[in-house]
Amino acid sequence: MELKEVGEFGLIERLKAGAIVDPARVVMGIGDDAAVLKGEPGFLTLASTDMLVEDIHFTLATATPREIGYKTMAVNVSDIAAMGGIPEQALVSLALRPEQQVEFVDELYAGLRECGQRFGVNIIGGDTVSSPRAMVINLAILGRVENDACLYRHGARPGDILLVTGDLGGSAAGLDTLLSPRPAPAEVIAWARARHFRPTPRVVEIRAALKAGGLTAADDISDGLVAEVYTLATASRVGIVLEAGAIPIAPATRQLAAIYHKEPLDYALYGGEDFELLLACRPDKVDAVREAVNRACRTPVTVIGRVVPAEEGITINHSGRVLPLTPGGYNHFQLDR
Amino acid sequence: MELKEVGEFGLIERLKAGAIVDPARVVMGIGDDAAVLKGEPGFLTLASTDMLVEDIHFTLATATPREIGYKTMAVNVSDIAAMGGIPEQALVSLALRPEQQVEFVDELYAGLRECGQRFGVNIIGGDTVSSPRAMVINLAILGRVENDACLYRHGARPGDILLVTGDLGGSAAGLDTLLSPRPAPAEVIAWARARHFRPTPRVVEIRAALKAGGLTAADDISDGLVAEVYTLATASRVGIVLEAGAIPIAPATRQLAAIYHKEPLDYALYGGEDFELLLACRPDKVDAVREAVNRACRTPVTVIGRVVPAEEGITINHSGRVLPLTPGGYNHFQLDR
Repeated sequence: MELKEVGEFGLIERLKAGAIVDPARVVMGIGDDAAVLKGEPGFLTLASTDMLVEDIHFTLATATPREIGYKTMAVNVSDIAAMGGIPEQALVSLALRPEQQVEFVDELYAGLRECGQRFGVNIIGGDTVSSPRAMVINLAILGRVENDACLYRHGARPGDILLVTGDLGGSAAGLDTLLSPRPAPAEVIAWARARHFRPTPRVVEIRAALKAGGLTAADDISDGLVAEVYTLATASRVGIVLEAGAIPIAPATRQLAAIYHKEPLDYALYGGEDFELLLACRPDKVDAVREAVNRACRTPVTVIGRVVPAEEGITINHSGRVLPLTPGGYNHFQLDR
Repeated sequence: MELKEVGEFGLIERLKAGAIVDPARVVMGIGDDAAVLKGEPGFLTLASTDMLVEDIHFTLATATPREIGYKTMAVNVSDIAAMGGIPEQALVSLALRPEQQVEFVDELYAGLRECGQRFGVNIIGGDTVSSPRAMVINLAILGRVENDACLYRHGARPGDILLVTGDLGGSAAGLDTLLSPRPAPAEVIAWARARHFRPTPRVVEIRAALKAGGLTAADDISDGLVAEVYTLATASRVGIVLEAGAIPIAPATRQLAAIYHKEPLDYALYGGEDFELLLACRPDKVDAVREAVNRACRTPVTVIGRVVPAEEGITINHSGRVLPLTPGGYNHFQLDR
């Protein structure tokens, strides 16, 4: 059987078996944005890793090395934010072609450091090896979170309100401008490109929101809103109703959707790589969370739906027409890509 | 300037600048077998990562997926052993071709788990992505060590005795049997192949040795004894005299050296990937260390030289003829490979 027949998530299920040999210090192994370990008194240690492969996650035809570096750090920081944590340490592995320019690596590291500095992440080690073919970057990140503040995907309960930070679809619109350039206002293209290459992991936002209390679950939106809604609902064993009209989409994203003859909502639902946070929150705390985040950094936090019992399934409400939400989002090894 | 002109170690020096933005919890960043962080009371956290690339570190023509998995875990465990630590948690990233067989990945994971179970290492997370070309595996490992037990490369002092665990050159001899098979006794080939693919990280040995006291520095032998002698001497700002006749070489390694028309000592000095430990020890504690390791697991610990002042340089004593030791060992991106 080939990998493309089982897909990324089928593969992960196979690999989980027998992975934990000494559970004493493991709070959560494979199955959330980051692993959770017992740490120093009062804190949990968070650990996560992401690998980026040339011509799958980025291509040198469209990305600068600094952008690749920045994004590699950002997607890992986002995994820590999705657990409610503070990112702290990174290990960076690079597989590079021998004929690659040193200046290229300097720039890639400048991007890693730029994002690392912004979020207080040290690069404490790594590995540099040669690769005969594609370039590969792996980053492993460590962070920490107070014992009682850790947010899992599995904590959402019926009655909770679904929130999202920022806006959605900008990264996918940015990808379109890179893959098939079309005439558009320069500032719109620049904005979308930045959304794609320099996403803002929502560390400040989640730390402010946690202080308000009431959050029950979190996930970062890497594979698209719909994919993450399914992930959160499955982990929490709940249903979800999304409000199509409430999903925040930036004007520039709508502008590019028109140019590329796409539905803005498709960018937002299925685009992925926005690295916004999807949050579940007790209804009585929604206002406090939104105010706390707004005070900390002005990032909008929008109500986009609610958590319902599992029997009600996963649906989307388009102006009163409630339809089943079609699953989808990025899945490595998937047959039909 | 191309990478092959600066080499792996030149590159690492460039990348170190500005890597630490918040030093509060970092005891040691880039520059040893593992990074060292402040951890829970009484302990330091160790973190390291190694990336293995198809057709550089292994080839499917000679290695089974189980061997690749076992070795990937073993080389990372060895980095923790080289700090005196106990390995605990691993994050595994895999870049795989979509047409790869699922059974291949199952076997690779079986190898990772087999070695993980042997040394008590959990697989707590990872990333699986598709790769259009070469397969890549990255493992990031976490471990811990008591505050006062952590062993660095920089601790050796003139007067210390140099020790090595096990024997050297077996892995390089095994590589020869894989790359250009020649007639040899089956048990000799099997032994050398196991040395190459299933090295034994010296966790039990180092933990026993630490109890005896007197160790001042440690390094694991991944790039060859000579390369690691240079690394340890440079980090400690000392000189070293190796005793050529004392370097432990197994009979099977000597047998293969004869078959491949090589010097057994060349296998031992420059071969690499033995993953034995190179240790510096106070002279009054050498016997206690050797006895402690022997009691724990019967692995031999051999005196192979001594630490001298830096002015005396790095030399090797061949039956009374003391010669400068020619540097060498594996270096990614090196021009002449």
